[in-house]
Amino acid sequence: MIDALLGDSGIRKAAAAARPDDDPAATIAQVAWSVLAEPGDGVAGALISQLGAIEALRFGLSGERFELAEKAIQDGRRRWLPRAQPRAIGDALHGAAEVGAQLLLPGDAEWSAAIDDLGDHAPAVLWVRGDPTHLVASSRVSIVGARAATAYGDTVAAELAGDLAATGSIVVSGGAYGIDGSAHRAALGAGGGTIAFLAGGVDRAYPAGHQHLFDRIRESGALVSELPCGAAPTKFRFLSRNRLIAALGAATVVVEAGWRSGSLNTAGHASSLGRPLGAVPGPITSAASAGCHRLMREYDAQCVTNAAEVRELMGIDVEHQGPEQRADPDQTRLLDALSTRTPHPPAEIARSAGLSVERTRALLGTLSLEGRVEQIETGWRRTTA
Amino acid sequence: MIDALLGDSGIRKAAAAARPDDDPAATIAQVAWSVLAEPGDGVAGALISQLGAIEALRFGLSGERFELAEKAIQDGRRRWLPRAQPRAIGDALHGAAEVGAQLLLPGDAEWSAAIDDLGDHAPAVLWVRGDPTHLVASSRVSIVGARAATAYGDTVAAELAGDLAATGSIVVSGGAYGIDGSAHRAALGAGGGTIAFLAGGVDRAYPAGHQHLFDRIRESGALVSELPCGAAPTKFRFLSRNRLIAALGAATVVVEAGWRSGSLNTAGHASSLGRPLGAVPGPITSAASAGCHRLMREYDAQCVTNAAEVRELMGIDVEHQGPEQRADPDQTRLLDALSTRTPHPPAEIARSAGLSVERTRALLGTLSLEGRVEQIETGWRRTTA
Repeated sequence: MIDALLGDSGIRKAAAAARPDDDPAATIAQVAWSVLAEPGDGVAGALISQLGAIEALRFGLSGERFELAEKAIQDGRRRWLPRAQPRAIGDALHGAAEVGAQLLLPGDAEWSAAIDDLGDHAPAVLWVRGDPTHLVASSRVSIVGARAATAYGDTVAAELAGDLAATGSIVVSGGAYGIDGSAHRAALGAGGGTIAFLAGGVDRAYPAGHQHLFDRIRESGALVSELPCGAAPTKFRFLSRNRLIAALGAATVVVEAGWRSGSLNTAGHASSLGRPLGAVPGPITSAASAGCHRLMREYDAQCVTNAAEVRELMGIDVEHQGPEQRADPDQTRLLDALSTRTPHPPAEIARSAGLSVERTRALLGTLSLEGRVEQIETGWRRTTA
Repeated sequence: MIDALLGDSGIRKAAAAARPDDDPAATIAQVAWSVLAEPGDGVAGALISQLGAIEALRFGLSGERFELAEKAIQDGRRRWLPRAQPRAIGDALHGAAEVGAQLLLPGDAEWSAAIDDLGDHAPAVLWVRGDPTHLVASSRVSIVGARAATAYGDTVAAELAGDLAATGSIVVSGGAYGIDGSAHRAALGAGGGTIAFLAGGVDRAYPAGHQHLFDRIRESGALVSELPCGAAPTKFRFLSRNRLIAALGAATVVVEAGWRSGSLNTAGHASSLGRPLGAVPGPITSAASAGCHRLMREYDAQCVTNAAEVRELMGIDVEHQGPEQRADPDQTRLLDALSTRTPHPPAEIARSAGLSVERTRALLGTLSLEGRVEQIETGWRRTTA
């Protein structure tokens, strides 16, 4: 199979067209892995990282013995072999060429190091429609949430994403209805960049109702998938795709999520990758916020209520406010004891405030400099200003 | 002054009436301290705890030298002396007798040990109208929040307080408009007990609009203050009163609070006392929830969304749900690959799911036992049930 694959002239030509500067065999092998293995296949990932894609393919599909983790690789072979058809690999390359999708491989300038944090679960390839440099923008934030968003969630997602995009962050999300869509749209509306990670091929709009949104993202942002063109989005692939969203953002923020929302899966990935996790609170009477509150309780998500707090979570733009001015308790007691009408002598004020006469005199002096008290003949009263 | 005070026959009589089993001098001295010192006066507290109330009074008001903390005590003397008038102490006792307020002293059966956690800042006395045993109920929770509550906040406060009171917790709050009032009312409505800590004397209704509510609390709960009857509530006393609310609750929950709400002061007291602190989230668009979100971000308050979570915070009634059932990813992939209409043979399903044929067969077996897949001649499909 491997020789047939690497020797197929049509496939070699397509590989050379996709990556003119690379050895076509290396390109083919990498694409082959994206077809043979489902997203996040750690055994495939380990094999590729230890042997390189070509040798990994040889081993993975041959009957040769492999010393380490023999059982895992035998199991892997049984998963991969049913898919080892040259045509499927050719279709991946041809399909991408047809829609102008760019093939990114690990190590490319546009291959974000953040993706490599996934280790053996990192994708073998990424297919990109739009501008791949968004993937390596200096500031990226993932904003995700429920498909069944409320007006509150949509508004909040749009405000956060719009503010973050306007201040230079690339907004990363999943292209779904609800929160994802609101975040993408607001980023575009703010003239910023946005990345949609899809669970199927970048040639198909899923959901179909987002065709127009995806067209706009392709023009001003990037549509990205690890799956070849033609691949259908499946439930498993949605869940796997979430790891890419979590990995690429410097922080992940969940805007609205039901108690069992898929967004909690993205949040879980962010947590296990050590990425800061934020959740937007909402009314406890709203089922659409239950998942966010759960993230705060169970996943130690930070409560975020505005874009500045998201930037703080991302580790940028931290504006430290000075410590709160705390009123001197004696001053509070003195002011409590003063009337705005009738002036009282210091001894009476001291008794009423529970302060010494000396302390009372000193405080009256300070407060009169601030214009907060005034002396009328022998007494003092509070000013009304 | 001390001899005049302890020897005054009218005051002795009032003290004996208030505490028939105690030495009137001890009663008088303790009440004197509650009149001389403002709430939370740590110097007075330290003196009383080291010398007892009578000797503390002698030292505190005399010119005698005191070896330790000489400066603090000199400052204290200057605060206390302007108030050292026997009539004020007599008025405190007479005023209480008039409205039937009970005098509680440290060590009484109804004096909660939780109050003693305040150390030198614990009150010298507590005046109680209603049932003082509520103070030592086995389960107490403090529910506080903004006076300027929204309908959302009032509803949530009522639901939490009603549920907690119905399940046996005494609801502690501050008797104010807004959240406090909703919490007290719901506790009463649920047939439970509630305690209102007032910032002035228990003989006066503040706010006046809560006169009827206070009457009901007096009948089925308790109105409590460390300040003598006749004492006006001042800003300082409101802030000091908050430490009693924070101390008495096994946990403190803030339902709604503006960015600078006084409830944050109560929350701060709870934190410094090591009491668990909860905050109810709300819409980030609501200024009335800004303080709650701030508590989560800056005070490490736990996000609470229902009474069960409050009970968990209090350390009672912890219902551990089992770990979430996580779907086997292979099973998800297999189900993704199956049609509900057309049956497919295992080899084809394996290829589509990216699983080995062996694993596919095994999973199909398991899932058919669960009735989730069915075999039609040589193929398998998903059931629609």
